[in-house]
Amino acid sequence: MQRVSPITEMCSISEGARSAGKNIALVPTMGYFHEGHLSLMREGRKRGDVLVVSLFVNPAQFGEDEDYGVYPRDFSRDKGMAEGIGVDILFAPTVEEMYPTGYQTFVAVEKVTKAMEGQFRPTHFRGVTTVVAKLFNIVKPHIAIFGEKDYQQLVVIRRMVEDLNLGVEIIGMPIVREEDGLAMSSRNTYLGSEQRKAALSLSRSLQKASELFRSGERNCGRIIDTVREVIQREKGIIIEYVEIRDAKTLEEIEFIGAQAVIALAMKVGRVRLIDNLVLREK
Amino acid sequence: MQRVSPITEMCSISEGARSAGKNIALVPTMGYFHEGHLSLMREGRKRGDVLVVSLFVNPAQFGEDEDYGVYPRDFSRDKGMAEGIGVDILFAPTVEEMYPTGYQTFVAVEKVTKAMEGQFRPTHFRGVTTVVAKLFNIVKPHIAIFGEKDYQQLVVIRRMVEDLNLGVEIIGMPIVREEDGLAMSSRNTYLGSEQRKAALSLSRSLQKASELFRSGERNCGRIIDTVREVIQREKGIIIEYVEIRDAKTLEEIEFIGAQAVIALAMKVGRVRLIDNLVLREK
Repeated sequence: MQRVSPITEMCSISEGARSAGKNIALVPTMGYFHEGHLSLMREGRKRGDVLVVSLFVNPAQFGEDEDYGVYPRDFSRDKGMAEGIGVDILFAPTVEEMYPTGYQTFVAVEKVTKAMEGQFRPTHFRGVTTVVAKLFNIVKPHIAIFGEKDYQQLVVIRRMVEDLNLGVEIIGMPIVREEDGLAMSSRNTYLGSEQRKAALSLSRSLQKASELFRSGERNCGRIIDTVREVIQREKGIIIEYVEIRDAKTLEEIEFIGAQAVIALAMKVGRVRLIDNLVLREK
Repeated sequence: MQRVSPITEMCSISEGARSAGKNIALVPTMGYFHEGHLSLMREGRKRGDVLVVSLFVNPAQFGEDEDYGVYPRDFSRDKGMAEGIGVDILFAPTVEEMYPTGYQTFVAVEKVTKAMEGQFRPTHFRGVTTVVAKLFNIVKPHIAIFGEKDYQQLVVIRRMVEDLNLGVEIIGMPIVREEDGLAMSSRNTYLGSEQRKAALSLSRSLQKASELFRSGERNCGRIIDTVREVIQREKGIIIEYVEIRDAKTLEEIEFIGAQAVIALAMKVGRVRLIDNLVLREK
């Protein structure tokens, strides 16, 4: 595995791989790898001749009062894990090179970024789309792989790729969960043991939603009420949102048609957690 | 010359040319060609193995009360002129394909777009950078050529290319003028004969600025005052701005150092005209 930091070096590697007719797969990450990241990398390993994993804790996607400064980092552990999967290139640029003095250009997707995460993290998606556009221009991937854990992010990125003619195939991979159901997240490391127990109500509530759906319930309001009830039984959790929306467009719906996504965000103490589940007829 | 309209067709031509190791030069235009456009195409012909000229009157860069609907168009004349230069591909996409229903992604450069043109056309540069980003992704040029007539646009695009790691070399070409000094513009066709005479004061005032500079004047305020005086002698001209700024960053300056740009915008009747001149020590 090659570790690359300078942007120009990454550009010329990508240019070379493309000229040689090789298929480039990119997995963009912020590091502190868990099984979720590894599942994306394994998919990338299958699909790409050259597998690039980017590791960049992107300041532009954190709000001012968010956890950029304390976001967990462990480069040497990440390096070993990526090597284990057979990653070809670990691209880890510096903040100074990604956002040099005078930096002032942003890519923004307007509508699908407004609700859900966007309501609680108003500058978040602008930071995500900007850094992903930059990474696509630098790495020049044919395919890029993202986790469905950040469901809205996946919809936003697909929209950006289509609108800006970026010509990258976007692959979404299923959420990877701990044995007890908690969706894997680098931020789970923030949870104390009591908080971690309370946090299980997220996935439990989504299971409950799934059961209701499978038993024929299609009314979004009723499913949401049940989910909220399950979570509110736990102490110390503040619900930011529970929403059911069209799985492709994220438009608001009252009743579930062929497929929808139920997505939620909570604060467990100071730790912000998200989770979601796609409800689709078999 | 090949005329291409579908975006997918243009993408696969570009992909093919790149794979074959060919150098692609792009000249983005809104059509209604004059000698200014042709000078860009001739430069492109020299520099590129494949010369692509895009022709797209981009609604996103016109304000609501601007001249999008009446902007001059003459495709068959443009086609002949491009053919005469030896353009390989005339890429003329439709508005419906460039901005399909649900379109919602924009690229914005924040600081250098605020003053000058940005003050009078607040959504203009967002439209320009968005369409240029799209064209770059579709045409995949190594080089793109723009006129210095739209001086601020050139600075904005250079900034976008650097910030988003677009990897396209941007070439600026000198303003082409009519024999009497009027900067060539597709919008000159709007001018009545009296207006056209009055419009000559723009280039005349810039000549005066140049003379002052060459005689040693470095105080921006004094040069601007003289330029305004020259223009205000004509009836029916409303000055939008006359500014002298750093030629590279467009930052405000009080005194001219190694090089600066003097840029101005006027309304001659209903016709909006811009012009500029770089003041540099020899």
